[in-house]
Amino acid sequence: MLLRNAWYAAAWADEVGGEPLARTILNEPLVLFRGAGNAVSVLQDRCPHRGVPLSKGCVTEGTLECAYHGLRFDARGHCVRTPGQDTVPGTIAAKAYPSVDRWRWIWVWIGDPAAADPDAIPAMPWLSDPAWVAPTGRIHLRAGHELLIENLQNHMHLQFVHRRTIGTDDICAAKTAVKRVGDAVHVERWLLDKPAPPLFAKAGNLSGNVDRWFNSVFLPPSTTILDIGCAIAGTGAPAGDRSRGIEIRSLHAVTPETETTTHYFWAYARNFRIDEPDVTAMLRAGAEATFAEDVAILESQQANAERFVDGRFANLPADRAGVLVDRVRRELAARG
Amino acid sequence: MLLRNAWYAAAWADEVGGEPLARTILNEPLVLFRGAGNAVSVLQDRCPHRGVPLSKGCVTEGTLECAYHGLRFDARGHCVRTPGQDTVPGTIAAKAYPSVDRWRWIWVWIGDPAAADPDAIPAMPWLSDPAWVAPTGRIHLRAGHELLIENLQNHMHLQFVHRRTIGTDDICAAKTAVKRVGDAVHVERWLLDKPAPPLFAKAGNLSGNVDRWFNSVFLPPSTTILDIGCAIAGTGAPAGDRSRGIEIRSLHAVTPETETTTHYFWAYARNFRIDEPDVTAMLRAGAEATFAEDVAILESQQANAERFVDGRFANLPADRAGVLVDRVRRELAARG
Amino acid sequence: MLLRNAWYAAAWADEVGGEPLARTILNEPLVLFRGAGNAVSVLQDRCPHRGVPLSKGCVTEGTLECAYHGLRFDARGHCVRTPGQDTVPGTIAAKAYPSVDRWRWIWVWIGDPAAADPDAIPAMPWLSDPAWVAPTGRIHLRAGHELLIENLQNHMHLQFVHRRTIGTDDICAAKTAVKRVGDAVHVERWLLDKPAPPLFAKAGNLSGNVDRWFNSVFLPPSTTILDIGCAIAGTGAPAGDRSRGIEIRSLHAVTPETETTTHYFWAYARNFRIDEPDVTAMLRAGAEATFAEDVAILESQQANAERFVDGRFANLPADRAGVLVDRVRRELAARG
Repeated sequence: MLLRNAWYAAAWADEVGGEPLARTILNEPLVLFRGAGNAVSVLQDRCPHRGVPLSKGCVTEGTLECAYHGLRFDARGHCVRTPGQDTVPGTIAAKAYPSVDRWRWIWVWIGDPAAADPDAIPAMPWLSDPAWVAPTGRIHLRAGHELLIENLQNHMHLQFVHRRTIGTDDICAAKTAVKRVGDAVHVERWLLDKPAPPLFAKAGNLSGNVDRWFNSVFLPPSTTILDIGCAIAGTGAPAGDRSRGIEIRSLHAVTPETETTTHYFWAYARNFRIDEPDVTAMLRAGAEATFAEDVAILESQQANAERFVDGRFANLPADRAGVLVDRVRRELAARG
Repeated sequence: MLLRNAWYAAAWADEVGGEPLARTILNEPLVLFRGAGNAVSVLQDRCPHRGVPLSKGCVTEGTLECAYHGLRFDARGHCVRTPGQDTVPGTIAAKAYPSVDRWRWIWVWIGDPAAADPDAIPAMPWLSDPAWVAPTGRIHLRAGHELLIENLQNHMHLQFVHRRTIGTDDICAAKTAVKRVGDAVHVERWLLDKPAPPLFAKAGNLSGNVDRWFNSVFLPPSTTILDIGCAIAGTGAPAGDRSRGIEIRSLHAVTPETETTTHYFWAYARNFRIDEPDVTAMLRAGAEATFAEDVAILESQQANAERFVDGRFANLPADRAGVLVDRVRRELAARG
Repeated sequence: MLLRNAWYAAAWADEVGGEPLARTILNEPLVLFRGAGNAVSVLQDRCPHRGVPLSKGCVTEGTLECAYHGLRFDARGHCVRTPGQDTVPGTIAAKAYPSVDRWRWIWVWIGDPAAADPDAIPAMPWLSDPAWVAPTGRIHLRAGHELLIENLQNHMHLQFVHRRTIGTDDICAAKTAVKRVGDAVHVERWLLDKPAPPLFAKAGNLSGNVDRWFNSVFLPPSTTILDIGCAIAGTGAPAGDRSRGIEIRSLHAVTPETETTTHYFWAYARNFRIDEPDVTAMLRAGAEATFAEDVAILESQQANAERFVDGRFANLPADRAGVLVDRVRRELAARG
């Protein structure tokens, strides 16, 4: 199910430099480029003259020039130069898509342009707040975005998929509270008075037992913010006092490329030891190892979905957040 | 034409060790694993919870544990543990398939389980008889199983496909007798008073002319036993006295993976010089070189079948055994 | 649109040696081989007995022998030997296609054989005239032949696609005259009193300004002859006196493999410095670099045609020759 009237992260802003960037989103082949004033524009990746991908061309004089016959297009997709003739035919244009540069991501809107309200872009302040630093990444996933979205709602998999990285044997025993808040889905999960997982112990210089949380907020259409951390046991973290611990925001923007492939943008933001590159490198390595484990499982899950086309899922109590997210997304689809 | 109500070799028994083994048979993705008591079980390769291949998981405490959320399944496919909750939902199960460990092969039955009679498994006593030794192998063939089955019935190809290995120029001149025996097809072929083929001369220390046979028995749905050998010319081999020669059973279990791909299990069994590893190695190398020649031809034949979808075959007298086998298989399909 | 009643270059004559050559043309898998008298024959690449590609076989005693069961076929596709039996069934034959060895190419006719008139083969005398020499090549193009044919009619792309090889900034300013002559399309293009392009300056030892032409003749179904060259400015080239310059015939035989892939045969013929291998090597390198640039663009154009299946083209005045060629080809298709 592809929700078209929605904002999706199309690229990290710094992926778009002096060259055009090709990227397919919701089955639409797009080209991103920096035109006049260095602003990013998004056009259909097809020259209206002879159909060549505009992403094969180059950026020149604030326009995107086709590699085949040199036609040039501006940020709105209008043809502004046609070699070999003095007049430019007014009817030649490439389709343009609404886009916004916010929170270090380029967001694009594939559906009805009249409905594209920038205020609907999910807030990701940790990416632009100087009090936070974040290693970031992008993964091309050969699995449908809904499988990834559900993965991010279900904590049980930490214990099994991530047993060699961030998982511990007690994950499934966490106290869990799930609630829908408007079109968002909030999950709170606590493990009290347990040993800290190794990565957190090291990053936070923590020894002894901790109170540990791994909460999540799903924001439609497909973004999930994980609020994870731990504090010395009994120092009040469950009541809101995180002063004796560390916290991380694991941010996940999930963008459908096609029904069965996904652009997965992630950031692993922290507000402690922000001037220590070694900590950044350690957290980056930990995040990349962890997400690689998810990729392996999700791609095998997708392959099986294509082999068992009538296969159904069986829901367990631990699937409740995922089921709620799926319900929200179906409602959004019905709203159009 | 896939005959579903039949036993197929799914694996060599020693292919299934401590890890689950994924294998597709008759278009069904399966997982084989050794559960309680080390017995092999065969399940559908899909966790009923979220559809991940069970073959990505691990074997633990006699059960197969899913790699995603840790559900465990027993030999019958029943879920026996669900992490994060105390009770196991009785409705969660993976489909199980009848299987038998016999003649060093794991045999599986994909069709109606009620019809799965182990007595119908083709007899391959040479694989378990200590008086015989056999190099064995498994080939993944990108050609339909019917092409391979027919290949094994037709001796003409030895002279051309195998001219660099076991073929000789006189093959097509062999005296041939073909008869149907119930649902089996028997072929007897003799070349009298001719030089021995090099591999046999070497393995059997034979010099001078021999009487040579290369007989075959097809057993439905898709197994062929080649009885090949030679004895010093004129010492009575055609009448049944093989004491002055050597004999080999070249065993072929042909299992459809899909309509157009095949698992090809082979063994090359002998009852002479059984304690000499050099002879085993020589015969293994000879068999592997020979079967590789068949693979090249069969894969090109399959590719052409996909390019010429309406292409028909023209039958020659030498195709009689293959035509009979095809008739038997069509009758079996009609019987259901 | 595949025009079937037409001659196509199937191979360079010297591609067909002692081994059979497989090649698909107009979706027909063919085998080319040299039979009796060393003449090239073209058969369907399928043995009528069991469907194996005849191209996997070998040429022996002027016949093509199947690799599987040794059946032999003559130049007309008739089976002339069937191993294991004395009589040859008269009904077994491989389909044969009309073919002609002319201008160093093997031409084949896929459509109605009764309409195959060798006089309709486009004249390419430069390939057999000893006064001319030509580096030649063959490119397998993953783009439809119509995209390549159009590429060869449109000069604008030289300025952009070939800006690193043969293109110059003034290409789009050339004076152009397009006319249809029967089923041919002629284009004349001139740039007067301009610097010579580097490759021509070097090959022709030219300095100073030149009058430069890049004319073309399209001959149906899919051949284009480019007549390119330059002469010292003002010495009468536009009026027909080329004595103070150099000329090259860039020959392009375009053969559909399938709707979306193409065999592209090219030659780059000259009538000057014909005994200098260094000049041949320089022109070969220049031609190969130039055509590689076309390949990159055309393959991206084809890929986009498959992504935007309803995509239409917008025509500019510079597309006139291509539009005329397309009209001719549609008329030919309607004539049958």
